[in-house]
Amino acid sequence: MADLPKTGLQVRTLIKSEGELELSLAEVDIKEPGPDQVIVRVEAAPINPSDLGLLIGAGDLSQAKQGGSEDRPVITAPVPPAGMRAMGARVDQSMAAGNEGAGVVVAAGSSDAAQALMGKTVACLGGEMYSEYRKLHISQCMELPDDITPREGASCFVNPLTSLGMTETMRMEGHTALVHTAAASNLGQMLNRICIADGIDLVNIVRKPEQEKILKDLGAKYIVNSSSETFMSDLVDALVETGATIAFDAVGGGPLAGQILIAMESAASKKAGGYSRYGSDTPKQVYVYGRLDLSPTTIPPGVGMSWGCGGWLLLPFLEKIGAEGNVRLRKRVVSELKTTFASHYTKEISLRDMLNLDVAKAYDAKATGEKYLLNPSL
Amino acid sequence: MADLPKTGLQVRTLIKSEGELELSLAEVDIKEPGPDQVIVRVEAAPINPSDLGLLIGAGDLSQAKQGGSEDRPVITAPVPPAGMRAMGARVDQSMAAGNEGAGVVVAAGSSDAAQALMGKTVACLGGEMYSEYRKLHISQCMELPDDITPREGASCFVNPLTSLGMTETMRMEGHTALVHTAAASNLGQMLNRICIADGIDLVNIVRKPEQEKILKDLGAKYIVNSSSETFMSDLVDALVETGATIAFDAVGGGPLAGQILIAMESAASKKAGGYSRYGSDTPKQVYVYGRLDLSPTTIPPGVGMSWGCGGWLLLPFLEKIGAEGNVRLRKRVVSELKTTFASHYTKEISLRDMLNLDVAKAYDAKATGEKYLLNPSL
Repeated sequence: MADLPKTGLQVRTLIKSEGELELSLAEVDIKEPGPDQVIVRVEAAPINPSDLGLLIGAGDLSQAKQGGSEDRPVITAPVPPAGMRAMGARVDQSMAAGNEGAGVVVAAGSSDAAQALMGKTVACLGGEMYSEYRKLHISQCMELPDDITPREGASCFVNPLTSLGMTETMRMEGHTALVHTAAASNLGQMLNRICIADGIDLVNIVRKPEQEKILKDLGAKYIVNSSSETFMSDLVDALVETGATIAFDAVGGGPLAGQILIAMESAASKKAGGYSRYGSDTPKQVYVYGRLDLSPTTIPPGVGMSWGCGGWLLLPFLEKIGAEGNVRLRKRVVSELKTTFASHYTKEISLRDMLNLDVAKAYDAKATGEKYLLNPSL
Repeated sequence: MADLPKTGLQVRTLIKSEGELELSLAEVDIKEPGPDQVIVRVEAAPINPSDLGLLIGAGDLSQAKQGGSEDRPVITAPVPPAGMRAMGARVDQSMAAGNEGAGVVVAAGSSDAAQALMGKTVACLGGEMYSEYRKLHISQCMELPDDITPREGASCFVNPLTSLGMTETMRMEGHTALVHTAAASNLGQMLNRICIADGIDLVNIVRKPEQEKILKDLGAKYIVNSSSETFMSDLVDALVETGATIAFDAVGGGPLAGQILIAMESAASKKAGGYSRYGSDTPKQVYVYGRLDLSPTTIPPGVGMSWGCGGWLLLPFLEKIGAEGNVRLRKRVVSELKTTFASHYTKEISLRDMLNLDVAKAYDAKATGEKYLLNPSL
């Protein structure tokens, strides 16, 4: 601990009861690690859509103001009343953010397992990663091979395990092909590489021609554009060809989940013989794992009766597959970190950059192909 | 077979490709039963909402015309274009209707099992029960005790097994209390009797004061009215008290399923400590088993991420619980047929009545407390 500073900076997000979001830097104490703990100097932490939910929440950045000093910038933004209701239990609690990241172990507890990590580069899943230093239990760290940098290992968990979770869930629930929306995202590109490697048919739903191009260049076979006039018939055709009966939807709100179920039902009816007033008996499932659209999800009656729509989250999935499943998936991620699970970042920013309003607006926009990486050691 | 007529009358429903529904009586041959078959003279068959889906389908009875003769009445009704799309595979096929019923075995095949049913009153689940005579496999018949009449045994399957299926599903999926909508229906009353007998907390959702009264008189403890201004807070209170996290919804369309999930999430948050941006981790499920409202189901984002909404049907459920489960449930139904599973009918009608337009409009209205029983032997 001799070489370590006594305190480190950490990004904090606070929603005040008067309806204001405040992003700031806090100076937090760096305390001795317990026997099975280590202290990681964080060198890379991605800004994922799932992080922005906590960081920005219902704050309206278009109305935000830059405050604080150059050294300690602060962003404040109004939170509309409807947003305040959704923020419920977090109001007036200053919270740290950042689901995952990677860095170097600079202090370790007394146990052999902790000591073995000393000086190693580790990937971390523990929350509060938007910090200069982060104390973690060794079970929250995964040792990376010597040729992997923190930048390369920063996104080891959320996107790789989520995309693997999709193909695993597909198999566990008896489906043989799948549908993915917002399909040109970093996660979507990863899912395409997994499906190509594993021989799984994947129907990619995108909204823009440039997103189609990203996926075509990757070798994706089935790409449909939800902005096209022929969307529904294109989708039904792809579903008939692939037999996909499960979808993972990052959009969540609006008509998309219902459209997918309707198209699945239409594809199933084309194959089925005879009429059933309950629709086809093909089970059809849409899992909503994101909420890019915050309007209500709408599901029309034409989906028949053999349908399901519901939330899907990574952590309950990882619990369900147990220790053996977790080890198997993590092993695959590490061994394919430079290929299948490579993440590409368009900008690397410092803690102070993160609280610069122009930068914040840019990473909050979640533009396709744009991906921000925080490096708290800059 | 000596005493049997050569033909019998049967209700037929036909949707023609030009957009017209036709209800008529067909004269169908009565053929020799196979070794494991029997011929049942049908004396009672309920008209359930699930039967009307096939019988009337998307036909618009408000625009219907009476035709045919007194002896062979015919009803014709237009089917709007939107309805025609939903009718898909059944167009231009004359179909028989009637999921269940009861009657007396008047002819039996050569096997011992079939011969043992000769002269017995049996409950039948086989479809096409709106017929004077129905040939069925012995597995589709359940022998009734001597003191049960066909009228008492006519509704042995759909409502009893569906309501038992709800409490069974509740237990199988790890919930301890449940919510039911359209709760004053025949099925809803049955579910209340089951829950009172089995000590299960049931939250009843109704729309009208007179429906509240029906359930209060039955001894129901939790009744909330969705037309009340305090509906959402009443529902949350009932969910906090009962801990119900699964609902069975006969309405299907509109905001109700989403409101139930929101209220469950609100009840779960009241109990949970700490903020999670994904909402509570309490699994919340709404099963849609009916479609009284044909508008889209809408689910707002405030339900968190641990939610599911999907179709629920009796037959897949019965398959899932296997032979042992089926025997267990059927045994309970027969032994409580005069109490828990008693059905009450407000009108008993003949085959010709069924094709009388005024009568048809009345049973198609599915009014609370009204229940029609067809007696094809009248």
